[in-house]
Amino acid sequence: MNTASSTNMRIKLPAAAVFLEIVIVVLFGVFVRYTPEETSRVADQHLYPFFQDVHVMIFIGFGFLMTFLKKYGFSSVGINMLIAALGLQWGALMQGFWHMRANTIHLGIKSIINADFSTATVLISFGAVLGKTSPLQMLIMTIFEITIFSCNEHLVVDVFGAADTGASMTIHAFGAYFGLAASRLLYRPGLKDGHENEGSSYYSDIFAMIGTLFLWLFWPSFNSAIAAPGTQQTAIINTYFALAACTLTAFALSSLLEKRGKLDMVHIQNATLAGGVAVGSCADLEIQPYGAMLIGSTAGIISVLGFKYLTPIVASFLRIQDTCGVHNLHGLPGILGGIASIIAAAVQVNTQISAGMQAAALGCSIGIALVGGAFTGLILSLPFLGQPSDQNCYDDSVYWEIPVEEEAQRNSPDRKEDHNKFSLDA
Amino acid sequence: MNTASSTNMRIKLPAAAVFLEIVIVVLFGVFVRYTPEETSRVADQHLYPFFQDVHVMIFIGFGFLMTFLKKYGFSSVGINMLIAALGLQWGALMQGFWHMRANTIHLGIKSIINADFSTATVLISFGAVLGKTSPLQMLIMTIFEITIFSCNEHLVVDVFGAADTGASMTIHAFGAYFGLAASRLLYRPGLKDGHENEGSSYYSDIFAMIGTLFLWLFWPSFNSAIAAPGTQQTAIINTYFALAACTLTAFALSSLLEKRGKLDMVHIQNATLAGGVAVGSCADLEIQPYGAMLIGSTAGIISVLGFKYLTPIVASFLRIQDTCGVHNLHGLPGILGGIASIIAAAVQVNTQISAGMQAAALGCSIGIALVGGAFTGLILSLPFLGQPSDQNCYDDSVYWEIPVEEEAQRNSPDRKEDHNKFSLDA
Amino acid sequence: MNTASSTNMRIKLPAAAVFLEIVIVVLFGVFVRYTPEETSRVADQHLYPFFQDVHVMIFIGFGFLMTFLKKYGFSSVGINMLIAALGLQWGALMQGFWHMRANTIHLGIKSIINADFSTATVLISFGAVLGKTSPLQMLIMTIFEITIFSCNEHLVVDVFGAADTGASMTIHAFGAYFGLAASRLLYRPGLKDGHENEGSSYYSDIFAMIGTLFLWLFWPSFNSAIAAPGTQQTAIINTYFALAACTLTAFALSSLLEKRGKLDMVHIQNATLAGGVAVGSCADLEIQPYGAMLIGSTAGIISVLGFKYLTPIVASFLRIQDTCGVHNLHGLPGILGGIASIIAAAVQVNTQISAGMQAAALGCSIGIALVGGAFTGLILSLPFLGQPSDQNCYDDSVYWEIPVEEEAQRNSPDRKEDHNKFSLDA
Repeated sequence: MNTASSTNMRIKLPAAAVFLEIVIVVLFGVFVRYTPEETSRVADQHLYPFFQDVHVMIFIGFGFLMTFLKKYGFSSVGINMLIAALGLQWGALMQGFWHMRANTIHLGIKSIINADFSTATVLISFGAVLGKTSPLQMLIMTIFEITIFSCNEHLVVDVFGAADTGASMTIHAFGAYFGLAASRLLYRPGLKDGHENEGSSYYSDIFAMIGTLFLWLFWPSFNSAIAAPGTQQTAIINTYFALAACTLTAFALSSLLEKRGKLDMVHIQNATLAGGVAVGSCADLEIQPYGAMLIGSTAGIISVLGFKYLTPIVASFLRIQDTCGVHNLHGLPGILGGIASIIAAAVQVNTQISAGMQAAALGCSIGIALVGGAFTGLILSLPFLGQPSDQNCYDDSVYWEIPVEEEAQRNSPDRKEDHNKFSLDA
Repeated sequence: MNTASSTNMRIKLPAAAVFLEIVIVVLFGVFVRYTPEETSRVADQHLYPFFQDVHVMIFIGFGFLMTFLKKYGFSSVGINMLIAALGLQWGALMQGFWHMRANTIHLGIKSIINADFSTATVLISFGAVLGKTSPLQMLIMTIFEITIFSCNEHLVVDVFGAADTGASMTIHAFGAYFGLAASRLLYRPGLKDGHENEGSSYYSDIFAMIGTLFLWLFWPSFNSAIAAPGTQQTAIINTYFALAACTLTAFALSSLLEKRGKLDMVHIQNATLAGGVAVGSCADLEIQPYGAMLIGSTAGIISVLGFKYLTPIVASFLRIQDTCGVHNLHGLPGILGGIASIIAAAVQVNTQISAGMQAAALGCSIGIALVGGAFTGLILSLPFLGQPSDQNCYDDSVYWEIPVEEEAQRNSPDRKEDHNKFSLDA
Repeated sequence: MNTASSTNMRIKLPAAAVFLEIVIVVLFGVFVRYTPEETSRVADQHLYPFFQDVHVMIFIGFGFLMTFLKKYGFSSVGINMLIAALGLQWGALMQGFWHMRANTIHLGIKSIINADFSTATVLISFGAVLGKTSPLQMLIMTIFEITIFSCNEHLVVDVFGAADTGASMTIHAFGAYFGLAASRLLYRPGLKDGHENEGSSYYSDIFAMIGTLFLWLFWPSFNSAIAAPGTQQTAIINTYFALAACTLTAFALSSLLEKRGKLDMVHIQNATLAGGVAVGSCADLEIQPYGAMLIGSTAGIISVLGFKYLTPIVASFLRIQDTCGVHNLHGLPGILGGIASIIAAAVQVNTQISAGMQAAALGCSIGIALVGGAFTGLILSLPFLGQPSDQNCYDDSVYWEIPVEEEAQRNSPDRKEDHNKFSLDA
């Protein structure tokens, strides 16, 4: 069939991947070297455990968080890996170009933490378009998004001098609105009434909890990894308590909003993390643990409300289909984080930051994300990039070889009728 | 139905969670600040990787270890998260109250390690009552148990001056006997012949191994995290070899006690960890690696024997239903750890500790746990706390929304007859 | 039946495990003590996070990587744990014997890193014979392989003075060729047309990705853990980029070699790791990031080609059945790593190493592995060691108690006919 042949990645994906890798190796050959100073190498040494925690968040955390879809586990964890592997190389270049010395990018532990950070934006955006895009589209999005991200980050951090240690604005809000704008351009009217594959299975929900928990656990490292040495401990403690408080309000709201009081895995997997997002911008400021808890508690509430009430509205009225609900996990809590930092600046928790610059950072991150995401979405909507038909969305078998038994089951003509009652027939 | 309505958590759980979070934020606002001394912050810095290992043990380790039940994975990993998120906040307060300066609790890395530790006691007790309690009951147990734990810990460590670095007595034995006492008060005669849901499935057993292995791997960090800097390496090495030796004896006994010589996942998931529990009290003493191995080997044997022979006896004669067998993993090996520390003191491995005080610590931990657990169990047996009916035990669907396919299968009237042969009917 | 009774491990396995543990405890009692010097303990302290990363690789990484088989998850993760628990104790002794002072082995953090390393060789070899051997055979292989490995390592590192920080030659190539030689001796003609259990299921493939990702993530720690302090950062950065580049070429080749362009989980689970293997010998040399990327890219290509074309040839012509394809993940990339180190020496990246000695190290590692593996395979083929019949290969239920439902399904006589269509009957 026409659709089937157009999703064949055999030439396109290898060609794009190999081409990009060659470009990257050449650029690294020309521009990239180790940090020459012994002193700076030693100073960075203590950051290595922080790096490893962030590294786990990127590959295990994001990867498994998205395995919640019942037939999309291979893609979630596999394409997540592909995006991140490309993104960290490209990110090292893009971020490095803003800080060259003698036309050379010098890499140390801090650089690879930042390279990992830059991939987080794409993985957040990936969540918005999950199940509706091809691996090739994702390679392209990775290149565009990280390039634009690096410019915005330079603006926010180096030009505005804004506080955003845990990157509520530059990574979370940016990644979410970039992905939502791209998703708007890739809108599929055929999926407006949902899709039978767009749900979880019992085990896929448990796999997703692996992702949730590693994100939750290592978030203190994410928010403190690039903080100034004297403030790292503050960032750790703030994030630790923000997440704990957020978890309590997320559980509470999840139960409160269901008529039988039952907890919803979507909320537990996602909204429990909103506190880590929201406390990001203020993480290294002396807001005291109770301040962090207030931010975290609020984030948990906002996030569950977003999943319950806002996502359906955004889908029908704004025509933005947000597979993983990144707006509720990264978008709204990212804005909350930005606002918290504006307030913190206004009440002079720290005299080095200005409310105006914090506000500019927030506006700029969202604005650039929306424009950049829309532009990227436009490019991704080119017809020859192999995106799946509506019917084949959220299904690994379009791009992956699937174990025989699983495939037999998926392709069965009776499947749709029978799959809710395979133990009932007798 | 009456039962169904009483397990509805819609008002109770959110009200309790939000109320507790408000109380905690207020107490943090009044009493808790960051450690002011720069020097002490820097000195703690090297403990952060130890903290992260312990953090993973609490949320991934305990959470996944309990996913072994075939229909209780959401609750195991989800309620584990809820307990720990509440517990670490409450623990920071309760432990902090014993060490205030100028009416203020000062938090550093060591405080959050201890806060995590305090949640471990509740998670151990949770294992004893797993599948038979509501999330609301668990919130209440968390508050009571951590409060009592903090008093006992103060007594053992600050008053008796006993050695218990890896907390064989204050966490493991305490958590086990607290949970067993609570379980005794919550005894369900209706479950004395077992329950069809009280077993594992193939994948649930593999999920549980994720928990087992992360506990096993990071136990050296658990046992050394709060050791004096000079003895941390000793604690790491002792725990490393105690666990390795324990693993060999646990495998050996598991095979030996089954007539066809087959290994039992229950033993491998649990008894391989007993060495980490048992070496805890002596972890930082110079017992030499072979001493640690002797303790570990013994623990592996005792633990498997406990699972095989003691648990059924405890259930029928003492009327204590111990879902996860915490008596065999934490109770008996915890006592062994206490005894080992008494012997170590008696033979003067370290001249600073006294056999009498070690014995007092062990007795006191078990005694307070039993009384505290019974008292807490009495409160938990209040009728309006939403505990499940006997029939609904070990079933996520009482408190969680379950994916459609799974729920359809679970609710099928033919399920019981058919579930062993869903590929046979034709 | 005869076969069934001979696979009964009830006496053999416990006897062997307990005997080995007693021998080890006695040897530890006689020879092993903590490192006495306070200074060396403190100097090692910063290696603890590296140790923990390696530790996770050994137990979670290798263990879960092998869970890809649909009915062999218990054995993969469980026997992996057993091998590693025995191996690290034996490894500490065998490596220690080469570095005794006053007839005493002194243990510190570096020793337990090396002990973990030594188990990696056996776990690699385990991959070659996975599903076709008994736990007892694996205990024997562990003892033999680690003894021989320690001799080869002593030769390569201490005698030849070769560079092999990340152990491309001494661990990866050695473990692979040792396992392949053993597998040759254990050749099963009955499996030459495959086996119905020798495949994955949807969830088993996702479990395997947990193993893949933790190996991938912590490989920089593996390759830098025992590097000289000044070169650790170099090893981290080289490995980080080698793996990223390798991931892109592995995805590209996997898609290119399938006619519909679909990705193959076998390649993604394994070939993405080949870059970590291949960059090992050069990891701490100043080959610059682009050099590491070139090595990684090449390894990804070679590894996928090996899985696709070489494995079937090796199986039919050389009669070597390689369950996990360790030749493609550890063997070929290990050789590539050795060659890269010869080139690096030849072009004088580092003046302290010699091309001749690097070549000698590679040849010696492969040669000793082949001879040692063949010898060990000969011993393992003794008839009373309980290896499974051809029919029972790749099946947990030979050595493990399996949950009732799962076992019922496995034993069903209709299973084979029905298992592809359990949702079709109506």
